[in-house]
Amino acid sequence: MPPVIFLLLSLLLLLLLSSSHAADFCVADLTGRLTPSGYECKKEAAVTTNDFVFTGLGKAGNTSNLIKAAVTPAFVAQFPGVNGLGISAARLDIAPGGVVPLHTHPAATEFLVVTQGTICAGFISTANNVYYKSLNTGDSMLFPQGLLHFQVNGGGTTAVAIVSFSSPSPGLQITSFALFANNLPSALVEKVTFLDDAEVKKLKKLLGGTG
Amino acid sequence: MPPVIFLLLSLLLLLLLSSSHAADFCVADLTGRLTPSGYECKKEAAVTTNDFVFTGLGKAGNTSNLIKAAVTPAFVAQFPGVNGLGISAARLDIAPGGVVPLHTHPAATEFLVVTQGTICAGFISTANNVYYKSLNTGDSMLFPQGLLHFQVNGGGTTAVAIVSFSSPSPGLQITSFALFANNLPSALVEKVTFLDDAEVKKLKKLLGGTG
Amino acid sequence: MPPVIFLLLSLLLLLLLSSSHAADFCVADLTGRLTPSGYECKKEAAVTTNDFVFTGLGKAGNTSNLIKAAVTPAFVAQFPGVNGLGISAARLDIAPGGVVPLHTHPAATEFLVVTQGTICAGFISTANNVYYKSLNTGDSMLFPQGLLHFQVNGGGTTAVAIVSFSSPSPGLQITSFALFANNLPSALVEKVTFLDDAEVKKLKKLLGGTG
Amino acid sequence: MPPVIFLLLSLLLLLLLSSSHAADFCVADLTGRLTPSGYECKKEAAVTTNDFVFTGLGKAGNTSNLIKAAVTPAFVAQFPGVNGLGISAARLDIAPGGVVPLHTHPAATEFLVVTQGTICAGFISTANNVYYKSLNTGDSMLFPQGLLHFQVNGGGTTAVAIVSFSSPSPGLQITSFALFANNLPSALVEKVTFLDDAEVKKLKKLLGGTG
Amino acid sequence: MPPVIFLLLSLLLLLLLSSSHAADFCVADLTGRLTPSGYECKKEAAVTTNDFVFTGLGKAGNTSNLIKAAVTPAFVAQFPGVNGLGISAARLDIAPGGVVPLHTHPAATEFLVVTQGTICAGFISTANNVYYKSLNTGDSMLFPQGLLHFQVNGGGTTAVAIVSFSSPSPGLQITSFALFANNLPSALVEKVTFLDDAEVKKLKKLLGGTG
Amino acid sequence: MPPVIFLLLSLLLLLLLSSSHAADFCVADLTGRLTPSGYECKKEAAVTTNDFVFTGLGKAGNTSNLIKAAVTPAFVAQFPGVNGLGISAARLDIAPGGVVPLHTHPAATEFLVVTQGTICAGFISTANNVYYKSLNTGDSMLFPQGLLHFQVNGGGTTAVAIVSFSSPSPGLQITSFALFANNLPSALVEKVTFLDDAEVKKLKKLLGGTG
Repeated sequence: MPPVIFLLLSLLLLLLLSSSHAADFCVADLTGRLTPSGYECKKEAAVTTNDFVFTGLGKAGNTSNLIKAAVTPAFVAQFPGVNGLGISAARLDIAPGGVVPLHTHPAATEFLVVTQGTICAGFISTANNVYYKSLNTGDSMLFPQGLLHFQVNGGGTTAVAIVSFSSPSPGLQITSFALFANNLPSALVEKVTFLDDAEVKKLKKLLGGTG
Repeated sequence: MPPVIFLLLSLLLLLLLSSSHAADFCVADLTGRLTPSGYECKKEAAVTTNDFVFTGLGKAGNTSNLIKAAVTPAFVAQFPGVNGLGISAARLDIAPGGVVPLHTHPAATEFLVVTQGTICAGFISTANNVYYKSLNTGDSMLFPQGLLHFQVNGGGTTAVAIVSFSSPSPGLQITSFALFANNLPSALVEKVTFLDDAEVKKLKKLLGGTG
Repeated sequence: MPPVIFLLLSLLLLLLLSSSHAADFCVADLTGRLTPSGYECKKEAAVTTNDFVFTGLGKAGNTSNLIKAAVTPAFVAQFPGVNGLGISAARLDIAPGGVVPLHTHPAATEFLVVTQGTICAGFISTANNVYYKSLNTGDSMLFPQGLLHFQVNGGGTTAVAIVSFSSPSPGLQITSFALFANNLPSALVEKVTFLDDAEVKKLKKLLGGTG
Repeated sequence: MPPVIFLLLSLLLLLLLSSSHAADFCVADLTGRLTPSGYECKKEAAVTTNDFVFTGLGKAGNTSNLIKAAVTPAFVAQFPGVNGLGISAARLDIAPGGVVPLHTHPAATEFLVVTQGTICAGFISTANNVYYKSLNTGDSMLFPQGLLHFQVNGGGTTAVAIVSFSSPSPGLQITSFALFANNLPSALVEKVTFLDDAEVKKLKKLLGGTG
Repeated sequence: MPPVIFLLLSLLLLLLLSSSHAADFCVADLTGRLTPSGYECKKEAAVTTNDFVFTGLGKAGNTSNLIKAAVTPAFVAQFPGVNGLGISAARLDIAPGGVVPLHTHPAATEFLVVTQGTICAGFISTANNVYYKSLNTGDSMLFPQGLLHFQVNGGGTTAVAIVSFSSPSPGLQITSFALFANNLPSALVEKVTFLDDAEVKKLKKLLGGTG
Repeated sequence: MPPVIFLLLSLLLLLLLSSSHAADFCVADLTGRLTPSGYECKKEAAVTTNDFVFTGLGKAGNTSNLIKAAVTPAFVAQFPGVNGLGISAARLDIAPGGVVPLHTHPAATEFLVVTQGTICAGFISTANNVYYKSLNTGDSMLFPQGLLHFQVNGGGTTAVAIVSFSSPSPGLQITSFALFANNLPSALVEKVTFLDDAEVKKLKKLLGGTG
């Protein structure tokens, strides 16, 4: 068979490949509808390399805030490429004295890698055991799905970490914000936490809650 | 830092929370399209507490029927809040002499709790073993996914049970309805069940089938 | 063919069924090893109906305690039959004035059905919205996976609920116990929650924590 | 760099590959313990090509029986290589006049391909719709997970099909065997199926059931 | 109760079945949107038996091409019925001297059954072990998810196989097409494969690649 | 109630927590048996903080090798804490001129973050499209599950990346090693790749293959 025929035949095969190819990925169309498995996919013809590239984790977050820390997410809302792929990431910046307060990710395990500075991190299991450690640059720590955990700057310089999650949409529920930064009535907060009224009202004021 | 600044800063953090929050839930938009993972989600801004509350299980079902029993489902079609969450429930009312006939849930395990009366319940495994027992108020029984099972009133008073399922859409296939209450030809029914023609025709007539 | 032959032949078929039957269920051998998918299965030959029946939810829990409430679980540790089946249940008893304090189930959605009395229940989403309502007997409410939620007796009589979970091992992490009932150092608790030192030490003392 | 060094270096890389390789497969050790995710894996060092090869589907099943049909499974019990891989297969032989009676696979969808003869096959949905068709050699049909379905020889010659399943352990529950070939009491069978006593007793006798 | 009443009552029950029935299946609406879990479902009222029947695997593929082989897929794009059901299939035709070149299915395990002729098939594990064998008519072989594998005609006659996959959308990535039949720059191909420039350019020309 | 009683009662509650706690995690017992869902769990009483901490990603890999690159995995074999948690990570070091050759992870999506230097990375879809880009420090890129991809040093200095995976055991299959570094016969390699004999033999020699 002459090469030109081979070529034609192989083009036919490519046609087959193209018609039988899998849904390798499903870049989120954030303007589309959400389903339990994630967002509708952007049409594959419109997908470009940039849909798989995210530049936001390279820039330090602004830590001039109450917690002297910043979380820069690359979740599906910021990085539509992760839609349906079971993974996402974020960057933590924690200034000296800073803290990522006690929180959970309702739908994901977290894998943290310290890339700068020192972080004291820990989690609490449902058996009520506490696992925490001071982590140096290059150290990694796991926070299993749904468990309360925290990260505190453990040194005199800003600490940075790259964290990844076992979900494109891990969620983030900071306990003190859930209790004190919304309209959950103070009496109910006190009832379900054993905290006293003065403390609850002080923190509601600090964190912007009402009720 | 003065409290007012703290407050502003924490509001910025809330903004972050709000933009990076997970799909905690996906209340079904039943007017939307269905996908293999469930219905499209209702817009989160339109979701209210009532989307997570269902009042239908509090009312006795009407047992004035052929089987003297009623199944009141809180599946995704009745309770859109369960969409994508891997769980649903139902209420069984079984009058004296009543029965929930032999059936399967093609996509879910069932966990039954008797809340009133006595129920004789059982299932058959693929190894053809029979597991059945008379359950009193407060007793629970499991029916593993996809297996044939039944519930029969075991006493002189109406029995009630709360059942939950490992799927928002467990399905319900009552064997005798599948055989005798549609247009599956009698000859085919006989062929695939070993039942005799007179019996098949009698039950087709009783249950409204044709063919 | 004479019936005796039919019988023999059908017995051969049963042999096939028996050798090709699926793992319909996997009753936990709690003395065996745990894996990420659950416990080793009890040998099927040793499984009896009682492995699928649980009687613990029929008895009121003892509410003579700090929270005037009791959780009676039918998780895999108490009810080995649920192993691997994606479901479990529990009974809540909440005396007047009682509370199931703020908590999460790290690995499961909860479906609550009030079977007696009145319960004020609610949850907080990762967008920091609060969804709560007073539920009467017969009402149901959902608490999506991993989110903070609570149940408070809402009337003058003991309330009871049957709750089911989308996991055989949902876990239970009560926030105030995670913070104040173990050896997590007070300074760390304060740092990650914004609570003040006096409050933390008071609750550590109340709930039995050290450090 | 001289080739010999390259070679050494690449061997080091292979060492890495070998120590970091995934669990590509998990050939069942059928003498080991079962877990909810399948059997323990055979040690990888003991795995050979033959663990991934099955020769049983090439031989006609013995159809000299009550149903004039045979199911030759390549499920995990017969073909340990499929353990944990989400797939299995079987061969159907249906002699003229033969039938694979009404049945379900509690944990799998079935994909049937007729490789010889004609088969009339169908299934019934939970909405009680009947989907059935006469299939010729080369035709395929799907039977969605957990739904009642059947296959009947539709011609004058033996029909053969290759069927595959979306589970290594799909299970097989033949309705008439579940009802009439075990010790489920006749009165209970009648109660949960609407069948009359004479019919139930006749079929119990035919299929070897007691009670 | 007179039969007519029974009938009416059973019709009411059917109504219940119909309103509470599960999503037994989700036939793809290929004109609809794709999600991570698959395509939107066709409306159930429009679904007919033909949505579950596929006739394409009965016809020999055209092997007059470069590889003397043909893959006839029954993936979701060709057979919308498999959408969401965790399974699909294909037919392989391999003429004498033909080959299904080295390839992977990124999202599925493959189960091959030789229905005609002889096929030499094999795969390579991540531990870099090679598993291959000459398969005769009736033999089956597994290719675990994501691993490189191949099928070569092993005799003097056309070989045919029915292959099934643990996904409705298994994907197909032929290594030499991925390297030489697109615009991946030759220099990059050489860098990431160790192949020399002449070979890469020769194959780019043969397979229609540029760059 | 006096505090001492409160304390006692709360201790009782802790007992409950402890007996009903979930399998929050399942640290691999690498000396135990493997199952399709991962390794047996280490007994929880023996688990310490160090089971969740990994220090290997902080140290540069040795790039004095054929590919001038090193992959330092934190997969389940190196970091037993990730067992069953759906995530793992690795560190890439790529010296100037270095390359992580064309490869796949059969069971995981990869999320790469460049932490030093410049990397040219890309992947090829099953539709045979090429997506590649030069990534600077701080840039991220996704490689969807099972697809061929590569990373090449794109600058004059050593590049470093932290990569995470959507599986505790992602696997790593380097295409040229699968083809040329084992005993897959040269004739078969040539048949399934279109490469010529001289090239195959040259690379077999370079990479240590036989046959």
